[in-house]
Amino acid sequence: MGTTIKGSIGLFDSGLGGLTVLRELHRSLPARSYVYLGDSARTPYGTKGKETIVRYARECAGFLLEQEIGVLVVACNTASAAALSVLEAELPIPVVGTIEPAVRAALESTRTGTIGVVGTNSTVSSGVYEEALLRHDSHLTITSQACPLFVPLVEAGMVAGDIVDKFVEMYCAPLKERGVDTVILGCTHYPLLIQAIQTYLGPKVAVVECSRAIAQDVEDLVGKDGGQQTTPDTRYFVTDEVSKFNYLATAFLGEREVRAVRIETL
Amino acid sequence: MGTTIKGSIGLFDSGLGGLTVLRELHRSLPARSYVYLGDSARTPYGTKGKETIVRYARECAGFLLEQEIGVLVVACNTASAAALSVLEAELPIPVVGTIEPAVRAALESTRTGTIGVVGTNSTVSSGVYEEALLRHDSHLTITSQACPLFVPLVEAGMVAGDIVDKFVEMYCAPLKERGVDTVILGCTHYPLLIQAIQTYLGPKVAVVECSRAIAQDVEDLVGKDGGQQTTPDTRYFVTDEVSKFNYLATAFLGEREVRAVRIETL
Repeated sequence: MGTTIKGSIGLFDSGLGGLTVLRELHRSLPARSYVYLGDSARTPYGTKGKETIVRYARECAGFLLEQEIGVLVVACNTASAAALSVLEAELPIPVVGTIEPAVRAALESTRTGTIGVVGTNSTVSSGVYEEALLRHDSHLTITSQACPLFVPLVEAGMVAGDIVDKFVEMYCAPLKERGVDTVILGCTHYPLLIQAIQTYLGPKVAVVECSRAIAQDVEDLVGKDGGQQTTPDTRYFVTDEVSKFNYLATAFLGEREVRAVRIETL
Repeated sequence: MGTTIKGSIGLFDSGLGGLTVLRELHRSLPARSYVYLGDSARTPYGTKGKETIVRYARECAGFLLEQEIGVLVVACNTASAAALSVLEAELPIPVVGTIEPAVRAALESTRTGTIGVVGTNSTVSSGVYEEALLRHDSHLTITSQACPLFVPLVEAGMVAGDIVDKFVEMYCAPLKERGVDTVILGCTHYPLLIQAIQTYLGPKVAVVECSRAIAQDVEDLVGKDGGQQTTPDTRYFVTDEVSKFNYLATAFLGEREVRAVRIETL
C-alpha cells in the first residue's frame, strides 16, 4: 500500500486540536509533506449543529483539495462524527477520520470491556463512538460524557491548574464511578489535557489519544516510505487572524509560518 | 426625537448575549417590534481577530437591513469595539453600540474614579473602554481584565456554582486588589453571571450592565412612543441550528420562535 498515494497529506480541524494529530504524523511519517487548515474563524465546532458542521467540513475539504493533497485527514472528532461519510462519498481521495482508529485502539486496550468516551457536545450526542464500539463488540459497557468547556480551556491556553482539575473531575467522575478501564479522548484538543485527565483517572485506566491512532491509520494507508518527497514541508493555513492561532500553536508545538485564508462558499 | 425613526429595532450578537439587551428593550419599549440575529454558527466572536469580527458584523448588519429595521443595535461588545465605526460610516440608519452607554453609566456611578472593565480578549485588547473613559475624564484609574472563559461558560449554561465562582475570582481578583468602586460588564453575556460577580466584588462595588445602558440610549433615540406599532412582535434568527440556541435561550429568557438563516457573503 501507499505507493499509489501521491501529494501532500491534508488535515483540518476547527482550531488547534488537529495539531496533536499533525505532531504524531510528523513523528511517524517525517518524509511526507503536509497542509494544515485550522478553521479558527468559526471555532469551536463542537457546540454547533450537524448541518453547520457538515457545511464547514465540506469547505475545509474543498480548500485542502485545491492544495493538491493525496489524502485527507479529518483531524477533528466533531467533524468526523458529523461529516466523515459525506466527505468519503464526495471526495476523489481517501479520507481518514478519527472515530475508527480510536475505537480500534480502545478495543485493543480494554480488558474489562468497560469503556469511557469523552468528547464535545456534538460528538457525544451523535452517538458515533457507541455505535462503532458496539458494532465491534456488542457486550461492551460504554459511558459517554460531553465536556463542552474542554475546548475553550485549551484554546484559552489553560491546560493545567486548579480550575482545569475541577473541570476534569466534573466531567470524568461519571466514568470513574462506572469503573471504566479505558477512556477514549474523543476530541483532538484533549491530548493537551491528558496529564490532568490521567492523574484524575489514575494509572490503571488507559487513556486512548485518538491522535496516535489516526497517525497509525494514515501510515497504514500511505506506507512508511510511500510518496516520499525530496523536500518535505508543512504549510499552515487558518481562517481567522494568524496571530491568534500562532500564539498558542507556538506555545504548544513550536515555531511555524501560518497564512490566513478565506474558505466560505455559498 | 424618535418620531422619525420607523421600522423595527434590529439587534445582533454572536449568540445569546444580546438577548440581555433585548430583554431590557422589551421592558423599556414594549410597543416596538424587534428583529434579533444570533450568529451562533460562528460564536464566539471575542476570541477572534478584528478583521474577522468586522466581516461578521457587516454580514449581520446586512441581514438585518434586509428585514427593514430602522435602528441597528450592536448588542455585542466585541462587535462594537471592532466594528461600530465601520457600521456607522456605512449604514443608512442610526447605529447604537455598547461602549458609550456603558461608559456613561460607569461615569455616573463612580465616586473614586477607580473603574474596572471586564470583557472578551478582543474587547479588552482593543482598549476601547479605556479610550472612551479617559476621553471623558483623564484622571480615571482603569483596570481591564479579559475573561475568555465567561462566554463559553454562559453558552454552556453554567452561570452559578463552584466552578463559576473560581473563574469569577480568577478574573476579578485584580479589580478587587485595585479597589475599583465600579465595574463595567463589557460583554452582553456577562449579565447572566452578575450574581456571582456581584457576590465576589461585594455590595460596595457598583456593577454596570451595559445592557441597561444601551436600552436607555435606544429609548433616547427613538423616543418612548416613537414608531409605535399596532402589533409589536419580535422575530428571532440564528445562523446555526435553531435547537442549539433555543434550549438555552428558553432557559434564560422564556419561549420564543426562532428561525435559522445563512448570512455569509463573499
